[in-house]
Amino acid sequence: MTDAGFGIDHLPYGAVVDAQGRQFAAVRFGDDVLDLSQLDAELFAGGGLDRFLAGGHPVWREVRGAVTDALRAERFPLVPLHSVRPVLAFEVADYVDFYASEHHAANAGRIFRPDSPALPPSWRHQPIGYYGRASALCVSGTDIRRPSGQVRVDDTVRYVPSERLDFEAELAFVVGAPSTPGEPVRTADADEHVFGVCLLNDWSARDIQRFETVPLGPFLGKSFATSIAAWITPLDALAGARVASPQDPAPLPHLQDSATPHGLDLHLEVRLNGEVVSTPGFADMYWTYAQMLAHLTSNGSSVRTGDVFASGTVSGPDPAQRGCLLELTWNGTQPLVLGDGSQREWLHDGDVVAISAHSGSIALGEVTGRIRAAR
Amino acid sequence: MTDAGFGIDHLPYGAVVDAQGRQFAAVRFGDDVLDLSQLDAELFAGGGLDRFLAGGHPVWREVRGAVTDALRAERFPLVPLHSVRPVLAFEVADYVDFYASEHHAANAGRIFRPDSPALPPSWRHQPIGYYGRASALCVSGTDIRRPSGQVRVDDTVRYVPSERLDFEAELAFVVGAPSTPGEPVRTADADEHVFGVCLLNDWSARDIQRFETVPLGPFLGKSFATSIAAWITPLDALAGARVASPQDPAPLPHLQDSATPHGLDLHLEVRLNGEVVSTPGFADMYWTYAQMLAHLTSNGSSVRTGDVFASGTVSGPDPAQRGCLLELTWNGTQPLVLGDGSQREWLHDGDVVAISAHSGSIALGEVTGRIRAAR
Repeated sequence: MTDAGFGIDHLPYGAVVDAQGRQFAAVRFGDDVLDLSQLDAELFAGGGLDRFLAGGHPVWREVRGAVTDALRAERFPLVPLHSVRPVLAFEVADYVDFYASEHHAANAGRIFRPDSPALPPSWRHQPIGYYGRASALCVSGTDIRRPSGQVRVDDTVRYVPSERLDFEAELAFVVGAPSTPGEPVRTADADEHVFGVCLLNDWSARDIQRFETVPLGPFLGKSFATSIAAWITPLDALAGARVASPQDPAPLPHLQDSATPHGLDLHLEVRLNGEVVSTPGFADMYWTYAQMLAHLTSNGSSVRTGDVFASGTVSGPDPAQRGCLLELTWNGTQPLVLGDGSQREWLHDGDVVAISAHSGSIALGEVTGRIRAAR
Repeated sequence: MTDAGFGIDHLPYGAVVDAQGRQFAAVRFGDDVLDLSQLDAELFAGGGLDRFLAGGHPVWREVRGAVTDALRAERFPLVPLHSVRPVLAFEVADYVDFYASEHHAANAGRIFRPDSPALPPSWRHQPIGYYGRASALCVSGTDIRRPSGQVRVDDTVRYVPSERLDFEAELAFVVGAPSTPGEPVRTADADEHVFGVCLLNDWSARDIQRFETVPLGPFLGKSFATSIAAWITPLDALAGARVASPQDPAPLPHLQDSATPHGLDLHLEVRLNGEVVSTPGFADMYWTYAQMLAHLTSNGSSVRTGDVFASGTVSGPDPAQRGCLLELTWNGTQPLVLGDGSQREWLHDGDVVAISAHSGSIALGEVTGRIRAAR
């Protein structure tokens, strides 16, 4: 029995296509996958996780128990991971990106708005965020085409391939059970709705973003591609990773985290062409996913099965823990020097970015992507 | 044969539920509707327009011809409009809101950023916009619950019902045929993808919006509800409404409108509790829907069946043509005085907002909503 982060205590979910072109929902176990349709053909019909996600916590717990038993009893044949290709495992409904790292938000503020306070006025009061393009979400391993867009250089506006392409290391939360329209989700109830987590790379074209962003926020600088890991780790596998994330000052009552805390002690690692360039810790995030969900629904909005909300760039207090090139190179002014002697202000064509994370014996599914030249 | 804006030259599409609870896709004709499943049971299976929209322009044109013939020949029994209830006619994929009225953008700039130029730096270069919550879209007639959210009053932040609830009169564009991922849609090809238009009310809580909006743009101040009309007018019915919308300075080549212009000469009317409070003209918009679509896809993003993009508030040069209370009352400083002597800085509970529009003999389906008290 193999392990390496994907042992019997983990069991993340995804969807894959085999060599014959058949798609099926799967659980990853070591270097193999289990075809979930063998366990429950109806729940996993269609080769995706949509029905399973919609089932809610009782279904998630029951299936996790059944999968564990089946693997222990070696009840079904397993399929080698290398023989299948991952695909998006569920239909993405709405996608929201938060901005929940104080270190990232303060660094971005210092870079983009040097004449204003580093943190926006509402930042410590609520986890601010924005809606992104749901159809931009693509599975790990998908090549990322360098986007073109309008940028301003020396007072001239041009439509050109982005010259400031960046990654952002983030953690995404996948909503399973919908919430009731009009009723805010309490932080204590977050785990009734959030099924699990996966790593996310919020690819960002800083030059496009910079020109377009006032006053309506990120738009085409983000919407060209957002990669998510192939494997979704259920929250039930992360009980040992929970930590408190206290806020100072305390937020208003509806945003205070519950007695069961929703911070997660995950150690991220960002590799650029195989070389580690950043090691942010998710425990350093200011806002928890329960607070993000409570805020998201505090105006009466409800969440649906397949909603994804992401943390925003995960950055820690140390310069080696910054989760994007914007911060790592301080907006391109302090290039990274890689092991081969080359420098990076921003991503080059052909660069491969891989984000991984672990917590104790659990390794989250990696999210990777290679930059292709502009069209 | 009745007409009043819904004659044989119009024939907008929707979905309705009858007294027996059966949902069907329908065309509105005068004060009746035609059950489209009688025409093509397969194309309109499920009681919605999704397959029909995905079919693209050849299918839209063929069905429009067949519907016209069937109505002329009185081939099928019609169903009285008053006996059915409209529902959302298609599954909303991604939702984008633009900011394409120069008058609105300049007024908003003067109000919110008095120390900066009225128009943001990129405004004349590209139709800027932001992604919104797709699941917030609801059909005309749905009550609108006043949202609660964080607002700052006198340096104190509170979570309270919005006291600055507003409407925004907009026109929405419904995407039928998807575009190819990675390939920008040329303005000349817009009508291969955009099926039709409907009125949209982008309800906005100005106090929530104001506190949250820096630096990521509108979020919870908008995401609680967005109403769209029940009836989608095909672009094929609006050939007579087309006008040029020249930009000065000319935009970059990929955003220049095609020889067939995509401006639309529609006359909007906003009524508050039955009283006309604004009459914006859509011909005054700066950017056309073809330019919005070209911009939206200029970074490689593709659009899907069910994508909706909206114009942003439609405001004209005259103060009586301002499409939201923010402008009409100049951020609450110049209240509207209604016929009953009451004043409105912002919407009161019980207020009904109705937005209608016409072009020649065609009346767009109205979008209405009544404000309910906060939860």
